[in-house]
Amino acid sequence: MRPTPPIVPLYLSAPDAVRLVRQLGLPACLSGMADAIGEDYLRWQAFDKTARVAHHSPDGVIELMPISDGQHYSFKYVNGHPRNIARGLSTVMAFGVLADVATGAPLLLSELTLTTALRTAATSALAARALARPDSRVMAIIGNGAQSEFQALAFAHLLGIDTLRLYDIDPAATAKLVAHLAGSGLRTVVCASTREALQGADIVTTVTADKQNATIVSADMLAPGMHLNAVGGDCPGKTELAPEVLQAAHVVVEYEPQSRIEGEIQQMPADFPVTPLWAVLAGQASGRTKREQVTLFDSVGFALEDFSALRFLHRHALALGLGERLDLMPRLHDPKDLFATLAKAPASSGRAPGHGHALPHAHALA
Amino acid sequence: MRPTPPIVPLYLSAPDAVRLVRQLGLPACLSGMADAIGEDYLRWQAFDKTARVAHHSPDGVIELMPISDGQHYSFKYVNGHPRNIARGLSTVMAFGVLADVATGAPLLLSELTLTTALRTAATSALAARALARPDSRVMAIIGNGAQSEFQALAFAHLLGIDTLRLYDIDPAATAKLVAHLAGSGLRTVVCASTREALQGADIVTTVTADKQNATIVSADMLAPGMHLNAVGGDCPGKTELAPEVLQAAHVVVEYEPQSRIEGEIQQMPADFPVTPLWAVLAGQASGRTKREQVTLFDSVGFALEDFSALRFLHRHALALGLGERLDLMPRLHDPKDLFATLAKAPASSGRAPGHGHALPHAHALA
Repeated sequence: MRPTPPIVPLYLSAPDAVRLVRQLGLPACLSGMADAIGEDYLRWQAFDKTARVAHHSPDGVIELMPISDGQHYSFKYVNGHPRNIARGLSTVMAFGVLADVATGAPLLLSELTLTTALRTAATSALAARALARPDSRVMAIIGNGAQSEFQALAFAHLLGIDTLRLYDIDPAATAKLVAHLAGSGLRTVVCASTREALQGADIVTTVTADKQNATIVSADMLAPGMHLNAVGGDCPGKTELAPEVLQAAHVVVEYEPQSRIEGEIQQMPADFPVTPLWAVLAGQASGRTKREQVTLFDSVGFALEDFSALRFLHRHALALGLGERLDLMPRLHDPKDLFATLAKAPASSGRAPGHGHALPHAHALA
Repeated sequence: MRPTPPIVPLYLSAPDAVRLVRQLGLPACLSGMADAIGEDYLRWQAFDKTARVAHHSPDGVIELMPISDGQHYSFKYVNGHPRNIARGLSTVMAFGVLADVATGAPLLLSELTLTTALRTAATSALAARALARPDSRVMAIIGNGAQSEFQALAFAHLLGIDTLRLYDIDPAATAKLVAHLAGSGLRTVVCASTREALQGADIVTTVTADKQNATIVSADMLAPGMHLNAVGGDCPGKTELAPEVLQAAHVVVEYEPQSRIEGEIQQMPADFPVTPLWAVLAGQASGRTKREQVTLFDSVGFALEDFSALRFLHRHALALGLGERLDLMPRLHDPKDLFATLAKAPASSGRAPGHGHALPHAHALA
């Protein structure tokens, strides 16, 4: 029996992901992820899709988001705990795994907290390229928290947005966003209300947290030709838009069965018409049909986007030599002989046992 | 704003899990896990339960098994790829995570390949203590692969089994099992067929792999008072027992919605009567009611058992100082400021950034 090939997934830590983004450059990461996500949305039928599996508690939600294209499998673990901020913790933390479908072996374990912000912004920009007016230059951002810089820079780099109109109930959040964007070439206008921020905006990004069925945007704030990028409403009971806004818009969603539960459209009847993003990207459904139309991307985040992001990370981490290997799986001399892994003097993390090591005996383990 | 408390889950590698088992001793691990699993089954109503989420492919299956008791959350990733053996890879590989429900923060990332074998054997023994005749001393083991030693030793240590009657279509597998059990005090009898192995057995453990609706045990092989511990039939299309065996037995299952899909009872009508293990353990349903009764534990493996095992590992790894810490989550100065993680010179794996580090600017990332 030949020895088992070692199964040693690559591990990309949070600092490694930062290194990867810095070495590639943030614009290249955002556009690379948008391309990867777009290519995967065009292969929509190839994916075995499920709505995420959520465990709700009084403090928040923990979710698993699995998906597979028959060659690779991925899942993301992600939480959403609005009260974490008061504890000094992030609202959202995530990690994920990319695996080989043919053998079930994990290939990559990666941080996905930073990556989720990148892939969410990349997906928003991807959708907006198909839905917003091509001459859009001004974007309002309502909610200036952890995701706002990524949204701002994705729209600057991928759509040519040059002016941001900003509002957050917490002025410190807006100040932080303005400080981060200093030197980016983006013009920032700090506004006193959502209504003020929306004046003159071509695109409206809503990315607030900690709201229970809030009405951040009402129909009277809309202008003809606006594109709404609704990112913050992403779980049951958490919405940002008035129902009349949805009624006034051409609504595009990622994965309808999940969006009906989690998206802005959870407020609407089950037969409220929506268009899948993949069909718009593939040219099989209409995006924007006329200049004065109001379009809306009701984004909740779908497993496919994490799948694309994990493959992007894996490819670039290997190319850049980032990350380390984890001894997550036993190294077996004989795959039918798991018990032999209990042999005396187990291999240290980096080393596989030799071929001739002694079999353990049950009495030695008592 | 105070700095974010670092979220650094403990990582228990495959070699670390071996160290843990060797330091505690295998019997103590098996009985400790059986106790932990038993205690959690007695809290059955406290758990938010779901059938596992499976992605099937021509080569095998990849599954996620989440569960929560409202205080802790866990999931296991596990594959089942029968053809892996021919590639020199394990059929089953697993890892899992234990997390804190209040914050969503992961506490432990652990290997679960070895641990799955331990918890499966511990669960089998736990069920058999409630279902087998108390004077059971002879166990047949049909299928002498990766899990067989663990089943043998769990039944020896937890039920007082002293004689094993062994059969596998691969004589090398049986020889390996016999070699591993040398010195354990267990008497081993190598048999030429399943029928021969079952002669005189008080308990019958079936733990074969790679069978599509096989009939390993038929009704004419049963003897009055036998307990069957059916471990190998655990996914759609994979069964080991003839339907008549099920009809002849008092059948106990872990989590009925999952067992109807994956267990031996997938062969039976949807209303075929089964009894939940938790109810037997809690004394709310009958286990064995008379000496000549045939009892059957139709085991497929349930997320609760991995939850118990992960908590067992976490407690003992902390006490023994095993494992290392992973920088899986960004360390943030301000939880609303994820973008700051892209600051120049990211913290190395072991160090958190100081309070006074400079904010990154978007132009520095271009």
